[in-house]
Amino acid sequence: METNVTDSENCHHHIPEYKDQRVDRYAVYTKTDVYDHIYYIIDRFINLQNLTVGNHAYEKIEGEYTPLTLCQEFFRKGSISPGNDTFDIDPHVDKECISIYPLEPLEDRTLSRDINFSLDFKRLLSVNIYLTLKAINLQTVRHHELPDCYAFSIIIMFDNRAHSGRIKINLENNVGINECKDWNVASTSGKNNHLLLFDSLVILACFTSLILCTRSVYKGSQLQFHYTAFFHTYFGKTVSWSERMEFVNGWYILIIVSDTLTIAGSALKIGIQTKDLTNYDVCSILLGTSTMLVWVGVIRYLGFFKKYNILILALRAAFPNVIRFSCCAGLIYLGYCFCGWIVLGPYHEKFRTLDKVTECLFSLINGDDLYSTFQKMREKRYIVWLFSRLYLYSFLSLFIYMVLSLFIALITDTYETIKQHQKDRVLVSQLKAFVAECRDQPDSGKYKIDKEPTCCCCFGYTL
Amino acid sequence: METNVTDSENCHHHIPEYKDQRVDRYAVYTKTDVYDHIYYIIDRFINLQNLTVGNHAYEKIEGEYTPLTLCQEFFRKGSISPGNDTFDIDPHVDKECISIYPLEPLEDRTLSRDINFSLDFKRLLSVNIYLTLKAINLQTVRHHELPDCYAFSIIIMFDNRAHSGRIKINLENNVGINECKDWNVASTSGKNNHLLLFDSLVILACFTSLILCTRSVYKGSQLQFHYTAFFHTYFGKTVSWSERMEFVNGWYILIIVSDTLTIAGSALKIGIQTKDLTNYDVCSILLGTSTMLVWVGVIRYLGFFKKYNILILALRAAFPNVIRFSCCAGLIYLGYCFCGWIVLGPYHEKFRTLDKVTECLFSLINGDDLYSTFQKMREKRYIVWLFSRLYLYSFLSLFIYMVLSLFIALITDTYETIKQHQKDRVLVSQLKAFVAECRDQPDSGKYKIDKEPTCCCCFGYTL
Amino acid sequence: METNVTDSENCHHHIPEYKDQRVDRYAVYTKTDVYDHIYYIIDRFINLQNLTVGNHAYEKIEGEYTPLTLCQEFFRKGSISPGNDTFDIDPHVDKECISIYPLEPLEDRTLSRDINFSLDFKRLLSVNIYLTLKAINLQTVRHHELPDCYAFSIIIMFDNRAHSGRIKINLENNVGINECKDWNVASTSGKNNHLLLFDSLVILACFTSLILCTRSVYKGSQLQFHYTAFFHTYFGKTVSWSERMEFVNGWYILIIVSDTLTIAGSALKIGIQTKDLTNYDVCSILLGTSTMLVWVGVIRYLGFFKKYNILILALRAAFPNVIRFSCCAGLIYLGYCFCGWIVLGPYHEKFRTLDKVTECLFSLINGDDLYSTFQKMREKRYIVWLFSRLYLYSFLSLFIYMVLSLFIALITDTYETIKQHQKDRVLVSQLKAFVAECRDQPDSGKYKIDKEPTCCCCFGYTL
Amino acid sequence: METNVTDSENCHHHIPEYKDQRVDRYAVYTKTDVYDHIYYIIDRFINLQNLTVGNHAYEKIEGEYTPLTLCQEFFRKGSISPGNDTFDIDPHVDKECISIYPLEPLEDRTLSRDINFSLDFKRLLSVNIYLTLKAINLQTVRHHELPDCYAFSIIIMFDNRAHSGRIKINLENNVGINECKDWNVASTSGKNNHLLLFDSLVILACFTSLILCTRSVYKGSQLQFHYTAFFHTYFGKTVSWSERMEFVNGWYILIIVSDTLTIAGSALKIGIQTKDLTNYDVCSILLGTSTMLVWVGVIRYLGFFKKYNILILALRAAFPNVIRFSCCAGLIYLGYCFCGWIVLGPYHEKFRTLDKVTECLFSLINGDDLYSTFQKMREKRYIVWLFSRLYLYSFLSLFIYMVLSLFIALITDTYETIKQHQKDRVLVSQLKAFVAECRDQPDSGKYKIDKEPTCCCCFGYTL
Repeated sequence: METNVTDSENCHHHIPEYKDQRVDRYAVYTKTDVYDHIYYIIDRFINLQNLTVGNHAYEKIEGEYTPLTLCQEFFRKGSISPGNDTFDIDPHVDKECISIYPLEPLEDRTLSRDINFSLDFKRLLSVNIYLTLKAINLQTVRHHELPDCYAFSIIIMFDNRAHSGRIKINLENNVGINECKDWNVASTSGKNNHLLLFDSLVILACFTSLILCTRSVYKGSQLQFHYTAFFHTYFGKTVSWSERMEFVNGWYILIIVSDTLTIAGSALKIGIQTKDLTNYDVCSILLGTSTMLVWVGVIRYLGFFKKYNILILALRAAFPNVIRFSCCAGLIYLGYCFCGWIVLGPYHEKFRTLDKVTECLFSLINGDDLYSTFQKMREKRYIVWLFSRLYLYSFLSLFIYMVLSLFIALITDTYETIKQHQKDRVLVSQLKAFVAECRDQPDSGKYKIDKEPTCCCCFGYTL
Repeated sequence: METNVTDSENCHHHIPEYKDQRVDRYAVYTKTDVYDHIYYIIDRFINLQNLTVGNHAYEKIEGEYTPLTLCQEFFRKGSISPGNDTFDIDPHVDKECISIYPLEPLEDRTLSRDINFSLDFKRLLSVNIYLTLKAINLQTVRHHELPDCYAFSIIIMFDNRAHSGRIKINLENNVGINECKDWNVASTSGKNNHLLLFDSLVILACFTSLILCTRSVYKGSQLQFHYTAFFHTYFGKTVSWSERMEFVNGWYILIIVSDTLTIAGSALKIGIQTKDLTNYDVCSILLGTSTMLVWVGVIRYLGFFKKYNILILALRAAFPNVIRFSCCAGLIYLGYCFCGWIVLGPYHEKFRTLDKVTECLFSLINGDDLYSTFQKMREKRYIVWLFSRLYLYSFLSLFIYMVLSLFIALITDTYETIKQHQKDRVLVSQLKAFVAECRDQPDSGKYKIDKEPTCCCCFGYTL
Repeated sequence: METNVTDSENCHHHIPEYKDQRVDRYAVYTKTDVYDHIYYIIDRFINLQNLTVGNHAYEKIEGEYTPLTLCQEFFRKGSISPGNDTFDIDPHVDKECISIYPLEPLEDRTLSRDINFSLDFKRLLSVNIYLTLKAINLQTVRHHELPDCYAFSIIIMFDNRAHSGRIKINLENNVGINECKDWNVASTSGKNNHLLLFDSLVILACFTSLILCTRSVYKGSQLQFHYTAFFHTYFGKTVSWSERMEFVNGWYILIIVSDTLTIAGSALKIGIQTKDLTNYDVCSILLGTSTMLVWVGVIRYLGFFKKYNILILALRAAFPNVIRFSCCAGLIYLGYCFCGWIVLGPYHEKFRTLDKVTECLFSLINGDDLYSTFQKMREKRYIVWLFSRLYLYSFLSLFIYMVLSLFIALITDTYETIKQHQKDRVLVSQLKAFVAECRDQPDSGKYKIDKEPTCCCCFGYTL
Repeated sequence: METNVTDSENCHHHIPEYKDQRVDRYAVYTKTDVYDHIYYIIDRFINLQNLTVGNHAYEKIEGEYTPLTLCQEFFRKGSISPGNDTFDIDPHVDKECISIYPLEPLEDRTLSRDINFSLDFKRLLSVNIYLTLKAINLQTVRHHELPDCYAFSIIIMFDNRAHSGRIKINLENNVGINECKDWNVASTSGKNNHLLLFDSLVILACFTSLILCTRSVYKGSQLQFHYTAFFHTYFGKTVSWSERMEFVNGWYILIIVSDTLTIAGSALKIGIQTKDLTNYDVCSILLGTSTMLVWVGVIRYLGFFKKYNILILALRAAFPNVIRFSCCAGLIYLGYCFCGWIVLGPYHEKFRTLDKVTECLFSLINGDDLYSTFQKMREKRYIVWLFSRLYLYSFLSLFIYMVLSLFIALITDTYETIKQHQKDRVLVSQLKAFVAECRDQPDSGKYKIDKEPTCCCCFGYTL
C-alpha cells in the first residue's frame, strides 16, 4: 500500500504555488488583494522551475507547453447603483480567457505584471485559473517498483457570484496517474515478481476455500429440500422459513463473501503492480473489507467454546428488534435532520448540507463538543436563537436520555432471554425435535437416506 | 431556501471595512491604537468604492449622502488621580458627534487624518461610529428571481466604560431588506410561476387533509360524549379522563398541527417569492417544524406492524414518569445553574450569563471538554478554585452517575412493563371491557346506534 | 454582583504593559531576547501615562513615587565548562537590585536603554521586576455606587533556575482594593439605600424562618427522647439509630443551613456596599450556595404529590451504597492518579501535578478528548510510550465499562427496590408499627401525652 | 522525582537553535527556503555561546571540538523530465559530507554563507545535519544533589525522498546523561544521605512484608496439598482447580508483587541518587506501579466490612465473562482497525498507522470529537467518502449501542447474581461444605492435623 499513500500525499502537496496560505475557506475583500493574488499565482507558475524542490515540470503536448489559462466570467451588461436601489442587468454570462505560456528556464523572466487584463468587479462573477503540471513519483524506486507519472490539473477559483464584498478562493486539484512512457532504471531487482507470486498464491487459496464453502452451502440447501419434502410427505406439515434457514450456515456465507472480495482485490493489486491499473481506492476497499470479515470470521472458532459465543448470540437475537427500533428512531432522527437543515442551515456551518446535519447530530449524541455548537448560534436573531435552543435541548434529551436508554433496555432484555435459553436448553423448533429423536450419534458417519422413516440422524449432520 | 442562505451570508460578509480583524472580543490597550483604529475605519469608508469587490454604495437620501457619524461620550467633568486615591467626578454624560461625508468617486481623496477630533481618555466612556451602506444581492438573478436591496446599518463601538486600560471593540450590523425600487433584468423566465403553482398545490392538499382530520377528531369527540352519556345513564358510572382521551386519535392531532404549519409556511413562502414579505426566519421555522412532524407521522404506519411500535409505546408510557422525574432533577439543575452563575460568573467565560451556564452544564453532562473547563479556573484565588472543584465534581458525579443511571432505570422499567402488557393483553380500562363484549366484528360495518343496550360494537369503530 | 464582575475584570486587564503577549507559559531562548523583554517592560512603565487608555497612575507614598525595582539572583561563584564536564560552583545565592523611578509627565523621556545593568547568564538564577500601579474603578459611578481604589502589585519573573537554555516568564498580579481617600461625585442618588433596605428585609425573613425551623427540629428531637424513654420503659427495647433519625426532618436541616448562609452572605453584602469590606468571593460563595439549597428545597413541595418524589427517594436510598461503592472505586482511582503522576508527570502536561491528574482522569471518564491525550505521549521513549498505552487502556476500560456499568446496576437495583416498597407499603420499622396502632387520625389534633399507654397517635404527629 | 522532571525538560528544551519554529510536521517548499534553513542552523551553531541563556557548550574530544556535520544523500545519476514522461535514473545512493568547526568565542565570526555547498534538488534524497552539544543541569544544586552532565546528539533531517515538492524537516534529539568528571560545589549538606537512609528503610520494610506474605502463600499451598491428598484418600474424589485456588489468598499475591516492585524501584532510586544509574523511566514505572498496587491493596481492609466489598466481588465475578466477551468484541474491533488502516490510511492522519487507528477508534467509542473526524474525510474521492461514512456509522452504532449495552447487561446480571448469593449464603463448593462440618470455631486456635478424620477445622484456618 506504500504507493497508495504516496499517491495521496502527492495530490495534496504537489502544489507549490499555494502552500503558505490556508486555501480552505480562504477569502479576499479588496480589489488590490484580488489582483495581488492573481499575479502571485502567475509569478509562481512562470518561475516554477526555479522554486520547486520537487521534480515538477510544465506539460508539453506535441512540443508545445500547455499554458496557464485565466478565464473571467461576467454579466453581459450591468449597471448597478445600490445607492438609489436601482439596477439594470442582463443575466447572460460572458466569458473571456487569456493564456500565459511558461518560458524556457534559460530565457529571461518576464514579470507577470506585464500581462494585461482588468476586472470589472461590478459585473464579475468569477475568475478561474487553470494550469497543468507534471511530476514523477520517484519514491517507489527505492522499493524496486517502477515510478508512476502524474499529471495535475489545478483549478483556482475566485468566486464573486454573491457580490457580497467577499471573494471566496478555492483550489481544486485533479490527479491523473499514468505509466511513464520512456524510462531507464539502472538496476531493477525481481522483488516485484515475489509479490506477484504471493498474490497469486493468495488468490489460489481463497479460490479453494470459496469452492469448498460453496459446495457446503449447496449441500445444505439440498438437504433442506429433502427435509421439506420429507416433512410434507410423511407428516403433511409445511416447514417454516426460520427452520429452513437453519440449514444454511451463516459462517460459510461470510467466508464466501470474504473470499470473493479477496480474490477481486488481489487481482486488482496484481494489475496495479504491473502498472496496468491505477484504481487504488477500489482495491484497498475490497482488501480492507475482506480483512475485516476474516477477523470477524475468527469468532466462529471462539464459538466452539460454549461460553464465548454470548456476544454473537446476543447480537443475532437482538438484531431484528434493534432494526425495528432503529427504523422508528430513524424516522424521528430524519425529521430532526430535515428540520435543522431547513431552519438552521443558513446560520450554522454544521447545518449547511443534509449529510453534514446527519453527521453533526450523530456526533452530538455520541458526545461531541456541544457548547461550541450552542455558541455559534449565539449572535443570531432572537427567534432563530430560541428555536435553536428548543431544537438542541429537545433533540439531545430525547435521544440521549430516552432512545439510548431504550437501547440498553432492549439489549439487556435480549441478554437475559438468551441466558434463560442457555439454561433451559429447550427444543424450540420442529426441526430440533425431529433431530432429537435420533438414536445414532451425529458423528457415527451413517447417511442412510434410503430408510428414512426409521432413522433421521442424517439431518443432524450438516448443522 | 437559496435566497435564505444568501441573505444570511450577506449579513455577515457585506462589511468590507472590518474583515481582516477578529471583531469578536477584539480590544486595544494604548492611545495610539485607538486613534489608528478610528482612522482606519474612516479611511476605509471614504475609499469604499475603490476598495470593495462587491456592489456596495453609500446611502443617498434626497440627493444627499448619509455621512459616517463619530460620537464620543464622556463624563462632563472628571479629575482623577489614582496616585493619591482622590477623584472629583460629575457622572453626567456628555455626547459630541462629528459627521464625515463620503466623496464622489471622481473627487480627490482627503486623508482621514485631516479630520480633527481628540479624545480625553480619562473622561472618555465610549466612541461609537455609525455608518450606513447599501447593496444589491445579485445572486438570485441566476435563479431567475428578482434581487433584493439591502441597507446595512453598522455600529462600531469602542467601549471604555470600565476605564480598565482595555477598550473593547464591538461591531453591530443590522440589515434591512427591501424590494428594489427601479429594476430591469434583460430576460426573466416564468420559472417563478411554477414555484407559486407548486406552493398552491401544497396548500390545497394540506387543507384537504386538515379538513378530513378535523372531521375525524370531531366525530371522535362526539362519540365520546355519547359513550359518557350512555355509561352515565345505563351503569351510573362516570368515565375517567384517561378513557375519554382514548376517543381522540393522537395521530390526527399531529397531522392537524403539521398541516396548519405547512399552510402557514407555504403562504409565507409565496409572499416571499412575490417580494411582498421578507421574514425568512418565521417561514423556515414553520416549514421546518412541519417537515419534522410529517416524518414523525410516518411512524404511525410502522405501528400497524405490531412489533414496530415498541418505541412509540415505550416513549408514551415513560413520558409521565420522565416529566415528573425531570421536574425534580430540573430543580437541582437550576440550583446548580444559579449557584454557578453567582459564584463563578466573574471568573469563567462559560458562566457569564444564566443561559450560558445552563448550556455549559448541559454540555458537560453530555460529554463536553471538561478538562479545559477545569483549567480555566486554575489561576484564580484559592477559595474560588476550591469552590469550583467542589462544584464541578459534585455536579458531574450527581448528574452523570446518579441522575443518568436513574433515567436508564426508569426507561428499562417502563420497557419491561410494556413487554409484560403485550404478553398478557390484559383489558385495562372499562372501555375496553365494554368493547370486548361485542359479538359483531368491528369490520362488520354495523352502526346500530338505535339499539344500544344489546350491541356496543359501534364504539369500537373509531378506535 | 455588578461590582464583583468589575473587580475581577480589573484584576486581569489593568496591566497595560504586557497585554500583547501571551504571558502564560511564555519563554525566551536568547540573550538579546531577555534584554529586549526587560527594556520593553521598563519603557512601558516609564511611558505609562502616555500609553494607557485607562486611569492608571504610579503609586505615590509620602510625596515620592514608588519605583520599578529590578532584582537579579545569581550564584555567588560559578565557572561552568560543560565542554569538558567540569564545574566549580558556590550555591549561595546573591541578590542585586536597581530601582527605576517614573518621571513626571512633563519631563523629558529618558530611554530605558540608558539604565545600566548586565546579566551573567552562566550564574543567573532569576530576574524579578516589581512594580506598583494604582487605578480607580469608575464603572460603578454609573450605578450610583462609590468607586473603589485599586493598588496593583505586579511581579514579572524571568526564571533561569533550570539553566536549560529556556527562560520562562511569568506574571503575577496581586490587587488590593481600598476605599478611596478623598472623593467628590457631583450627584449621588439614594439608590444604594434601597438595596440596603432590601438586604435587611432578606436577613429578617431568613432569621424568622431559621427560628421556626430550629424550633421544629428541637421539638422533634425532644419527641424522640420521649419515644426512646417510653420504649425503654414499657417494652424494654432500645431504639435503633435509623429510627431515631426519623424524628429529625431533613428538610428543616436544609432550610436552617440555607438560612444561615443567606444571613451571613447578606450581611457581607451590606458590608461590601457600604465599602467596609471587600471579600467579594466569600460573599458570592455564601449567597450562591444558599440559592442552590433554596432550589433544592423546592423539591420538598413536589414530594407532597406521591409520584414526584421518586428521585429524592431513590437518591436517598442509593446514597449509602453509592458512598460505599465510591470508596472502593476511589481507592483504585487514587492508585491510578498516583501512578500516572509519578510515571507520566515528566512527559505530559496534564499529569504534571496531582490535582491535574485527578481532573484529567475524571475528564477522560466523562468523555474528554482522549486521542489528543494519547498523541501527546507519542514521541517519548519506547518504554514510557508502552506504559502510557497500558495505563490509559486499562484505566478507561476498567472505569468506563466496569465501574460505570456497576453504578447503573446499583441505581437500577435501588430503583426497583423502591418501586416494590411503594407497592407493598410494608411497615419496616418498629416505629411505624407502633404508630400504626393508632386509632386516632393524625390530623385529629389530639396530643394526649398524659395517657401514653392507651394512645400513641401523638408520635405520628411530627413525621 | 525532581531530577526526573528536570531531565525530561532538558531533553525538550535544551535545543536553542530551533525553538521558534514548530518542528513537528514542519516543511518547506522552495529552494531558497531550504538554503535559508540550513544557513540559519549553521549560524546558530557557530554563535551558540553568544546566544544561549543556558550553559551549553560544544563537545571537546581530546582537545578538539566535535564539528557540525552536514550530509546530503542523492541518486548517483538522475535525469528526470516529467514534461514528456521520461526519466533515466540510477537508484544507487551517494552520500557527501562536510564538517563545520565551531570557533573559539574570541575569534572573529565567519558568516555561514561562506560555506560552499550546493544541492541538486532533482537528485537530492535528504540532507542531515548532525551536531553535538554538552550541558550541565545545575538545577539539582539547589536540592543539594550533584548535577548531571548531559550530551545532546541532535540530528536535523530534511527529507526529500518523496520528491513531491515538499521537504519535511524533522528534529531528533538523543540525550546521554553522565556523571560529571571534575566538580567542586562550595558546600554540600548531608541531605542526600537522609534520602538514602529513607530508601533503605523502605526496602527493609518491604522485604519483611515480602517474606511474611511469601510464607503465608507457601503455607496455603501446602495446606492445599494436604487437603487434596486427604480428599483423595478418604473420599476418593479429586479436587477441582477453582477449589484449589481458594487456598491461595489473592491479596497476598498482590502484596508480594507490590513489594517486589517497590524493592526494585527503591534500589534503582538509590543508584540514581548516588549517580551510578540514569534510567529514570524504569525506576518511575516500578515505583509508580507499586504505589498503585498499594492503594488497590487498601480495598482489602474495606472488604472486612461486609457491605463494602461489592465492587471487588462484582469485578471478580464479572471478570471471566468480561474477558470472554472482550475477546469476541476485540476480534470485531481488530477487523475494523485493519480495515480502517488499509482503506482510510492514505486519507486521514488518524488512520496512518495501526496503533493510531486503534487509539482513534477507542477514543471515538469513548466520546471523542467525531464531527471533525467525519469532516477531514469530506474532500476525498466519492467512493472513499462513501466508504468512510459506512465505516464510521456502522462501527459507532455497533460499538456504542450494541457492545456497550451488552457490557452493561453483563455487569448488571453479575451484580444481581452476587446480591442473590449474599442473601442466600449458599454453600457452593465441596470445600465449604467440608469446612462447615466443623464444630470448632475457626478462631479456637486448634490445629489438630494429627487426628484428621475427626476434626477438619484446621482447613478453615487460612481462608
